[in-house]
Amino acid sequence: MAEKLIYLFEEGSESLRALLGGKGAGLAEMTKAGLPVPPGFTITTEVCRKYLKLGKEVLKEIEPEVRKKMEILEEKTGKRFGDVNNPLLVSVRSGAPVSMPGMMDTILNLGLNDETVKGLIAQTGDERFAYDSYRRFIQMFGNVVMGIPHEEFEHIIEKWKREKGVKYDTEVDAVTWKKVIEDYKELVKKKTGKEFPQDVWEQLFMAIAAVFESWNNERAKVYRKIHGISEEMGTAVNVQTMVFGNRGNDSGTGVAFTRNPSTGEKKIYGEFLLNAQGEDVVAGIRTPLPIEKMAEALPEIYEELKRVCDQLERYYKDVQDIEFTVEKGKLYLLQTRSGKRTAQAAVKIAVDMVKEGIIDKATAVRMVSPKQVETLLHRQVDPSAKYDVLAKGLPASPGAACGKVVFTADEASELGSRGEKVILVRPETTPDDIHGLYAAQGILTSRGGMTSHAAVVARGMGKPCVVGCEAISIDLEKEVFTVGNVVVKKGDVITIDGSRGIVILGEVPMVEPSMSPEFRELLSWADEIARLQVWANADTPEDARRAREFGAKGIGLCRTEHMFMAEDRLPAVKRMIMAMTREERESALDEILPMQEGDFYEILKAMEGYPVTIRLLDPPLHEFLPKEREILEELMELEKEPEKNALLIEEKRELLKKVRALQEANPMLGFRGCRLGIVYPEIYEMQVRAIFRAATRLVKEGCKALPDVMLPIVGHWKEMEILREMVVRVAEEEMSKAGVRVEYHVGTMIELPRAALTADEIAKYAEFFSFGTNDLTQTVFGFSRDDVEGKFLPQYIEKGILKHNPFEVLDRDGVGALMKIAVEKGRKTRPNLKIGICGEHGGEPSSIEFCHQIGLNYVSCSPFRVPVARLAAAHAKLSEDGKGWSSEK
Amino acid sequence: MAEKLIYLFEEGSESLRALLGGKGAGLAEMTKAGLPVPPGFTITTEVCRKYLKLGKEVLKEIEPEVRKKMEILEEKTGKRFGDVNNPLLVSVRSGAPVSMPGMMDTILNLGLNDETVKGLIAQTGDERFAYDSYRRFIQMFGNVVMGIPHEEFEHIIEKWKREKGVKYDTEVDAVTWKKVIEDYKELVKKKTGKEFPQDVWEQLFMAIAAVFESWNNERAKVYRKIHGISEEMGTAVNVQTMVFGNRGNDSGTGVAFTRNPSTGEKKIYGEFLLNAQGEDVVAGIRTPLPIEKMAEALPEIYEELKRVCDQLERYYKDVQDIEFTVEKGKLYLLQTRSGKRTAQAAVKIAVDMVKEGIIDKATAVRMVSPKQVETLLHRQVDPSAKYDVLAKGLPASPGAACGKVVFTADEASELGSRGEKVILVRPETTPDDIHGLYAAQGILTSRGGMTSHAAVVARGMGKPCVVGCEAISIDLEKEVFTVGNVVVKKGDVITIDGSRGIVILGEVPMVEPSMSPEFRELLSWADEIARLQVWANADTPEDARRAREFGAKGIGLCRTEHMFMAEDRLPAVKRMIMAMTREERESALDEILPMQEGDFYEILKAMEGYPVTIRLLDPPLHEFLPKEREILEELMELEKEPEKNALLIEEKRELLKKVRALQEANPMLGFRGCRLGIVYPEIYEMQVRAIFRAATRLVKEGCKALPDVMLPIVGHWKEMEILREMVVRVAEEEMSKAGVRVEYHVGTMIELPRAALTADEIAKYAEFFSFGTNDLTQTVFGFSRDDVEGKFLPQYIEKGILKHNPFEVLDRDGVGALMKIAVEKGRKTRPNLKIGICGEHGGEPSSIEFCHQIGLNYVSCSPFRVPVARLAAAHAKLSEDGKGWSSEK
Repeated sequence: MAEKLIYLFEEGSESLRALLGGKGAGLAEMTKAGLPVPPGFTITTEVCRKYLKLGKEVLKEIEPEVRKKMEILEEKTGKRFGDVNNPLLVSVRSGAPVSMPGMMDTILNLGLNDETVKGLIAQTGDERFAYDSYRRFIQMFGNVVMGIPHEEFEHIIEKWKREKGVKYDTEVDAVTWKKVIEDYKELVKKKTGKEFPQDVWEQLFMAIAAVFESWNNERAKVYRKIHGISEEMGTAVNVQTMVFGNRGNDSGTGVAFTRNPSTGEKKIYGEFLLNAQGEDVVAGIRTPLPIEKMAEALPEIYEELKRVCDQLERYYKDVQDIEFTVEKGKLYLLQTRSGKRTAQAAVKIAVDMVKEGIIDKATAVRMVSPKQVETLLHRQVDPSAKYDVLAKGLPASPGAACGKVVFTADEASELGSRGEKVILVRPETTPDDIHGLYAAQGILTSRGGMTSHAAVVARGMGKPCVVGCEAISIDLEKEVFTVGNVVVKKGDVITIDGSRGIVILGEVPMVEPSMSPEFRELLSWADEIARLQVWANADTPEDARRAREFGAKGIGLCRTEHMFMAEDRLPAVKRMIMAMTREERESALDEILPMQEGDFYEILKAMEGYPVTIRLLDPPLHEFLPKEREILEELMELEKEPEKNALLIEEKRELLKKVRALQEANPMLGFRGCRLGIVYPEIYEMQVRAIFRAATRLVKEGCKALPDVMLPIVGHWKEMEILREMVVRVAEEEMSKAGVRVEYHVGTMIELPRAALTADEIAKYAEFFSFGTNDLTQTVFGFSRDDVEGKFLPQYIEKGILKHNPFEVLDRDGVGALMKIAVEKGRKTRPNLKIGICGEHGGEPSSIEFCHQIGLNYVSCSPFRVPVARLAAAHAKLSEDGKGWSSEK
Repeated sequence: MAEKLIYLFEEGSESLRALLGGKGAGLAEMTKAGLPVPPGFTITTEVCRKYLKLGKEVLKEIEPEVRKKMEILEEKTGKRFGDVNNPLLVSVRSGAPVSMPGMMDTILNLGLNDETVKGLIAQTGDERFAYDSYRRFIQMFGNVVMGIPHEEFEHIIEKWKREKGVKYDTEVDAVTWKKVIEDYKELVKKKTGKEFPQDVWEQLFMAIAAVFESWNNERAKVYRKIHGISEEMGTAVNVQTMVFGNRGNDSGTGVAFTRNPSTGEKKIYGEFLLNAQGEDVVAGIRTPLPIEKMAEALPEIYEELKRVCDQLERYYKDVQDIEFTVEKGKLYLLQTRSGKRTAQAAVKIAVDMVKEGIIDKATAVRMVSPKQVETLLHRQVDPSAKYDVLAKGLPASPGAACGKVVFTADEASELGSRGEKVILVRPETTPDDIHGLYAAQGILTSRGGMTSHAAVVARGMGKPCVVGCEAISIDLEKEVFTVGNVVVKKGDVITIDGSRGIVILGEVPMVEPSMSPEFRELLSWADEIARLQVWANADTPEDARRAREFGAKGIGLCRTEHMFMAEDRLPAVKRMIMAMTREERESALDEILPMQEGDFYEILKAMEGYPVTIRLLDPPLHEFLPKEREILEELMELEKEPEKNALLIEEKRELLKKVRALQEANPMLGFRGCRLGIVYPEIYEMQVRAIFRAATRLVKEGCKALPDVMLPIVGHWKEMEILREMVVRVAEEEMSKAGVRVEYHVGTMIELPRAALTADEIAKYAEFFSFGTNDLTQTVFGFSRDDVEGKFLPQYIEKGILKHNPFEVLDRDGVGALMKIAVEKGRKTRPNLKIGICGEHGGEPSSIEFCHQIGLNYVSCSPFRVPVARLAAAHAKLSEDGKGWSSEK
């Protein structure tokens, strides 16, 4: 290994993040910025990768260099590693290039043994502290490095506390800690067959190896899988001089965000514990104090901390999440990293930082990921709803969720995967629970703070979460929790509001989110950057209005079949389908026409000045008739009194005949879309007539209606030619009847491979294309969505054949390749061809990025996803310019 | 119009066929070859096209030129057009560039009027002949040009024959013909409000216009549609000096083929009538004599005719179909064209002509179209079958057919389109019956000769046909025909044998065709030319043997699902599907394994030395279980005695549960193909094990077994990677167990758009591709074959949206474009990738041509189509070399 394997903090930098990990790079930057960081060094991820490949040999290779660096730490601190009189103690921590909170392991107080503990007493004059530190070290080392369960150590402490009649750890005296240590060492020997290592160098290299190996532990793997982090990266190891927050009431430890990670408020935010080590905070075992309390306990340190936070933010141009320790009145920073935040906070922070002159608009847009703002579109408890609050906890992750109570991660995962909505209720969560957190609608814990495992993970996932809700008392065995005399059993429904930290019994009405002024501002910046426009899919005037409110610049898909399904129309629709002659069919259609006209009038009006793309009838006609089984059952019932029901029976038999005649083996590939329009032109004519009657009426009323007529399931240019001619003819008839002109276009969905492959021919007759990537995915893969999602698709994803469900994330290699062909061929014929997408992918960030890359003009998605899409469109542009985030990993 | 509009026969040539039509070009070539052709000229198709676009104006434009050409005819004949003493009479006939027999109209004796008829008497001294000719002219002109129904003229003749008490036209005397003529003229006046035109120039231009307009008559349109002839072509008009075959017993008219068009025998073949005009022969109204009889009636002329035939054949290097007239002992040729022939004849003629040194092998191959030889694969009456011949007629078109008797073309069409097999029985057929001929299995007529309408059309369509079967007496009103006292009613089943001209009551056993030595020889020449190999689809050893017999060079698709369907295996297969655990499934599979091994053993043995491409299980599992409806019915029955049937009910309920669990909304796009192999690897493993046990056994026995394993419905390279690894692993296990090696390959179907689009990735793991164009057509079009063929596809073809059913003729623009992508991408990764096709298109000539063009290695089709495909493969190569036939119009 020729390259530099170990960096002192002062030698590193942010640009070496891939080698040093996030923590190492952060410590380096802080050190260089002159901040108070205990000295230390970082062993690179390169070493980890080699270790994972070649094994222990690698430790021997780095040993000389590690010893050299330890000497430098000895020089800086004036202490010596393993020295009986003035021992140097270090922490050993993992730090991957991408943040993986709670995933990797940490060892503190390394360098203590039966001899050096005496040196620590000499240094500090605090025997109790020294033995407490030693027992903590054995416990942590025994657990993390030697694999002995945490509980077995806790049992020993419990035993001694009972013996001594004390309740809290803080009440345990030095003598008792010594006994605990004896028992610990015996436990280690019993469990591992070896003595607890007294050689401090052996301790150090075992710890380094354990950090490397922790890269491959189960919870780390799960985390990486969920977050799409590469398995190849490896972790760095940070070895740092120990400082102690547990040296009395002028000491302490804490974590702080430079701004509120939940709301984005510009105010230092966090928690601290007096006289405690860092692990006490992060593990959520003791409930810490809000950081403001430091102003009383350690006022000078608090002021210094605020200054340091400000300095860090301006240095990193982002909110920082720091760990600090105060040792006997001196502040030390142990870690800094970009602070995880809620979407709401992310938006506010980004906008505020622009206004504070820290960053520019593009950076602000880049700082908020489209995936993140999805959570802003989470529902909230209806402010006008009446309900009783069952309990209050900490508002750890915003949004409201409702579901059945479950008490184990396994059960949450099982029910969740079946599509049931559950709330996972736990005293606290651990990394082993990650699959349950993932499957649950929300998380409720009785213990832990805002930075506890549950809180951090829930915020990352954008799930509502309430933590530290001490009012609830959980009985895991009986699977109930109680609040006073209210008993909540497994399966009972509760609602949690993670924005306010409250728990409610039963289901509460919720409201859909609206956008904050900051969010609007950020999205307007995003629009300035983006090349793609964002439109919405909307079938009703309400949806259209909502889409507009969320910033949609048009309707990319207005489906007309839902209008056919409306209860007041279904009888006429049925008559239309049952018609034996064209005349009968037309008479039924005449009844539907004014209703459709009304639909179009409202939606065109709601979108005044913006195009509304109306798709003519798409589903096969049998979808409007009852199912065969239903009719058969009704018939059997009627035939119990055949004479009385003679007429009805006759009618049902007719219906049955029609239903059977219309039955299809593969309706997805059957008689639908424009095929209906070709065989029954009168149906499409009626729809087009309704569109132009509505539009001309609006134009006469002074409203700018912009209808675009879209034909579904076109596969051959001749279909397009015939139907385009029909649309133009009917439009002209209606316009000349009304005496006004309407601006309109005729275009087609591209949802069949053949349409994409012959797009040059189709573009001769189509003024716009809209990719129907739902159907295109079905035909390109040969996947019937109805059939495969529940059957083999999960196995395909599990086996790694597919990375994502292709109905959620656009398949670039297959479907995308076909889209590219269609864009190229279409624009060859008609260079200014307007092209969009109206499949569900139109609201998914990675798919939007791809649409940007292949040069689409717009994406159209459900109204609630419009903000996500606007942001994603901007990110796609920034990414293209080499400035940012890319969703493709 | 600057170009040359009218060509004298001596000015034209074969190379001007597009302008002069086939008839005009033939007359030109014959004239230039010094053959006895009555002088005349041809008005080009260009004039027709202009006429159809611009109307009558065009006639004025060409008038000066027509008059000039008529003057030349006058000079040549010494007669004058419209002259009272020595009138020039002409025929006016259509002639399109592509032969359209019986489709276009003809006028004879043009130039006769009340005055010139006297001149004709003066010329011929035969008053009766002159008035007969005049009345024929009025009748033909009145019908064709003025639109008066033929029957109305016939009624007048009938009236006068009754009046005069005579039975045959030949008994009508001159005086009576004059009365007929008076009545004819009155009829014309009554029907059209105008006098019959006496101005011969008016007659001429009206006739020319009528020929032009006949291009667009209904029967012409239907013919063009069926034969895929362009609407744009137009027809030429031939104006030719009349000669008369009805001037006594030293005159006559006839048609002749230079070789027998039914068997190919090298002997002049045809029919003639003494003292008759051409129309009497072609219309099939009088039954003519075999041409050999001319040797007795007109021995010198017969010898001259034979010499002329020989000369024509060597000139055109093809069999000719000529029309001739003998006028007072002098032979005139009126037309020559390439002779339509049966497939059997085509093959024999082509091979014979090579041996006679007239043509080379490539020309011989080119002379027989793949479409034509399909008819050689028609079934024949089993020679060993016992049956009584009901009646005998002329063997007009070979092959045997069996079906229900129908008496109208409409009914034939109606039942035929419903998939019923019918035999159309008519006194004679007319061009208006074409839809019925198309729909019927075979045709039987009581009148007409080998060149009657029914005979010509049936041969063209390759349908069995018996004509001139005078033994049957047809009563169209009662819808029966009788032979002696046997009465055959509508709906009764008969069998006809068009090779021998016999009719049999009821259904007779048939045999599949075998190949004549000439056919084998021709195909061996085709193989020398072709670049594409021809393989066959075969699931059984019998099919494999037949394929080999027909010249297949491998099996391109051996489906394994039919083996699963076999009655002795279905119970184990069902148990396999019903299995709750992998163990249960494996135990059922263990039972199936030796049976599958037996299947593969036989088929590999039958194809020794040739590759056998075995496709692993493809259909969804529910296809092996009973339908839900069936189980429900059985359950209802069982539940009448619930206690007695308790166990069975339990079992049925389990089955019902499974059937429902396996139900799919769109099975075509569901859980099938390699998806089964991914989820249930044990099924595919069993099949692979069976293949390699069979193959190793054969190798040990000294037989060269060449199994190729093919995976269905692959859409992602990962599927291919996983399954390839499995195949190789199992193959290696079995080979090392057996101690012998087997040559094998692993490849995939390309039947999903995604497979084609990502062929470069897939080719990393696949050694061969086989296009499954059935499924590819379904997914590219979004057409479920089950649903669209019966529903809107016929309408799509009728409306001209699609030219062909894309499941029959490969869609080059869509499916073909995707195939091209797959070939290019696949070969980019693996330059020697073997690529074939095993969809039904593999046996269809136009599709085979396309496969050749995009560079496939082989086509695989059903065994019976192998000869067609071999020929088509050669044609594709010849066409590429600019030497031939192309199926793309």
